[in-house]
Amino acid sequence: MEEKVVKAIQDEYPDDFASCYGCGRLNEDGHHFRTGWQGDHTVTIYSPEPKHMAIPGFVYGGLIASFIDCHGTGSAALALHRKNGHEPGDGTEPPRFVTASLHVDYLKPTPQDVPLKAVGTIHEIHPKKWKVETEVYADDTLCARGEVVAAVMPSTFLKKD
Amino acid sequence: MEEKVVKAIQDEYPDDFASCYGCGRLNEDGHHFRTGWQGDHTVTIYSPEPKHMAIPGFVYGGLIASFIDCHGTGSAALALHRKNGHEPGDGTEPPRFVTASLHVDYLKPTPQDVPLKAVGTIHEIHPKKWKVETEVYADDTLCARGEVVAAVMPSTFLKKD
Repeated sequence: MEEKVVKAIQDEYPDDFASCYGCGRLNEDGHHFRTGWQGDHTVTIYSPEPKHMAIPGFVYGGLIASFIDCHGTGSAALALHRKNGHEPGDGTEPPRFVTASLHVDYLKPTPQDVPLKAVGTIHEIHPKKWKVETEVYADDTLCARGEVVAAVMPSTFLKKD
Repeated sequence: MEEKVVKAIQDEYPDDFASCYGCGRLNEDGHHFRTGWQGDHTVTIYSPEPKHMAIPGFVYGGLIASFIDCHGTGSAALALHRKNGHEPGDGTEPPRFVTASLHVDYLKPTPQDVPLKAVGTIHEIHPKKWKVETEVYADDTLCARGEVVAAVMPSTFLKKD
């Protein structure tokens, strides 16, 4: 049986921040990545579509980078939300993060016919900046390792001139 | 007038390696990134689709990571091909690379209504491993900086099991 994230931080983002191609619930064409707690770690689970290939049978590296990216910002939001005394589903709007930097080490070709699971370990490096170390598994095989530095989204971010 | 890459390395990949969601000419749903020489630098030009948003008006970071990723492997292929005495279009099949690691620093929010241009600088760090430093511009604004370490694709890569 496929694992599923029940309470995801992305379900709680305000509509103005829910259009992301990676993790926005309102982006009709997007991936709809959803990130939640599993103990002290964060998890995101996703089954790549057949089109997301590098060569037939193996997942495209850009999809894995996207997966680690949104898992990172979602994990940072979960962590700061918890630090503020909140959990997804308690009715409080969570903080929203942007990616400052992304690093991915591709360890093994990633098979395309199994769900991917990102498992995150979170470190606060500044009250507004968090580091998320991520391992991406295909079944039990560790295929990629990632690191995201995520920063609280500036309040001016929505203002475009 | 929008710039265009005329002779792209991805046009020369053999069919078995032309299905990549990022840069494969045979992937009907993919981005079709195309990478060519501009002097001693490599360039890839791409106009993100409206759906590729982070929030309305700004490009999704995962798309930028994908862009840098395929620009990196394409640039490494161009460089080794040139080292071997060949240029795209001369009828010789080019080498094909895979991504060992990818790093992206997001410097500024990337506006969605202009073409993106990746400009690569290539360093040979081993006969089968090349580093590609990339700057991503939206018009004249430097929005992201990336680094890809790309390795020649192992001959066993197509064999699954």
